[in-house]
Amino acid sequence: MNIMNMELWYTENQTDNVKFSMKVKEHIYSGQSDFQKIDVLDTYEFGKVLVIDNWTMITEKDEFIYHEMITHVPMSVNPTIKNVLVIGAGDGGTVRELTRYNTIEKIDMVEIDKMVVDVAKEYLPFTSNKLDDTRVNLYFEDGIKFVKGKENLYDLIIVDSTDPIGPGEGLFTKEFYTDCYNALTEKGILINQCESPYYPNNAREMTRSFSKLNEIFNICEAYQYHMPTYASGHWIFCFASKELHPTKDFNATKWNELGLATKYYNTDLHLGAFALPNYVKDLLK
Amino acid sequence: MNIMNMELWYTENQTDNVKFSMKVKEHIYSGQSDFQKIDVLDTYEFGKVLVIDNWTMITEKDEFIYHEMITHVPMSVNPTIKNVLVIGAGDGGTVRELTRYNTIEKIDMVEIDKMVVDVAKEYLPFTSNKLDDTRVNLYFEDGIKFVKGKENLYDLIIVDSTDPIGPGEGLFTKEFYTDCYNALTEKGILINQCESPYYPNNAREMTRSFSKLNEIFNICEAYQYHMPTYASGHWIFCFASKELHPTKDFNATKWNELGLATKYYNTDLHLGAFALPNYVKDLLK
Repeated sequence: MNIMNMELWYTENQTDNVKFSMKVKEHIYSGQSDFQKIDVLDTYEFGKVLVIDNWTMITEKDEFIYHEMITHVPMSVNPTIKNVLVIGAGDGGTVRELTRYNTIEKIDMVEIDKMVVDVAKEYLPFTSNKLDDTRVNLYFEDGIKFVKGKENLYDLIIVDSTDPIGPGEGLFTKEFYTDCYNALTEKGILINQCESPYYPNNAREMTRSFSKLNEIFNICEAYQYHMPTYASGHWIFCFASKELHPTKDFNATKWNELGLATKYYNTDLHLGAFALPNYVKDLLK
Repeated sequence: MNIMNMELWYTENQTDNVKFSMKVKEHIYSGQSDFQKIDVLDTYEFGKVLVIDNWTMITEKDEFIYHEMITHVPMSVNPTIKNVLVIGAGDGGTVRELTRYNTIEKIDMVEIDKMVVDVAKEYLPFTSNKLDDTRVNLYFEDGIKFVKGKENLYDLIIVDSTDPIGPGEGLFTKEFYTDCYNALTEKGILINQCESPYYPNNAREMTRSFSKLNEIFNICEAYQYHMPTYASGHWIFCFASKELHPTKDFNATKWNELGLATKYYNTDLHLGAFALPNYVKDLLK
């Protein structure tokens, strides 16, 4: 029997009218948790790929872009950050980048779906390899409930959510953002995954979450990054803050003195990332 | 006969292992010129799409990004540009943006394939609608031969080429870039389509053309833009120049005084576009 010619492709329906397909070496894992369907693929172009509910979450080839941009931007604005709350981020990549800062004393990570963490530990060591750091406390709970009632506890909250459908939906509400505001210290910063400006579905969610954050926080600025394996490749994080401005209160020299090696982030790019195209600025008005 | 359920998809093989597919309303045009295969599709997500040799050239939805970034960056660095040479760019989008500057006196456009211009005039009025501007001279010739022997004639040369395979191949050579250097005036600027850093095939061409330009020109800097319908969405133009630096000799106030409405380009983004990720800088070293 010759199976050499079988081609296996994973296709993400980025919109009803756009498909993105990766050639697959092997479908390594498939499971159904209480919350969602979880798959791991080994692909030719992107290495290992984590897929949740048929959406690409991370790929081995470009997860560094996402995880560097979600962490180093706030850490360079406030290098004195000690206590961090991470919501979602079951693959562990955000925690991996955070643990590179010796100044961070505690990282609470709240992931609703333990199975995502288990799968990441088994199949995605490149992102999950710092989840055992002694400063990391893992909570397998609903992030929305976890943050409610907490006051003045965290210097940084990172909402590293999936898209605002399924279990991630409640993470895009005004109530949740208000709870986050209260849980933050005086100089607190919230980083929120804010989708993308290009396809109408993503753009609507970007606009909605930005405007909610903008109502609650004194400072709210969007910044962009090139993420080739997400729909359109043009993605946005929101930087929401009580007091610190992401470019005016940013000290490039101090961050560069840390000597952290990064593959995407640098301090010039930090400033550049906040310079948005006109059509994106119009959407956020 | 019920043909309502037929689905038509156009797929670009972005690499051997990656496919990008658009749902098609109608295959409007298909032709074979002396140089290449030319197709026009009407798509649900991207409007009209020009495809050459099975590669997506422009789409109605995001061509503005490409054409604004290839023209307004050099025009804002040297607002006194009068004579421009455009090589390739048969769709007309680059010329459309250039004609918005009253200060430009002459635009020579050299496109090897007349059929591309004819097709654009017929099916893509949104890019081709300024090709009849009185300042525009159309030459249906080989750009490589056209530029040879010309001296001190153009303030700006834009090489708006297809990929370095097929008829575009000679536009990525050291000899051609040297001819361009000689054809430029003292403050001359060359803008070159320099592919993308992400997939190895594109990255190799980016590195090769950048290093050739860097040998010939006193100043050579790469800048990036978000182009969702090109492979990876992360694309690069090279700014090569005899004297003017793209950020140090850039006068934002002057450009903003022109009052040109743009959908992607603005003067903050101009500076931000030259702030490249570390992995891209490493490739260009």
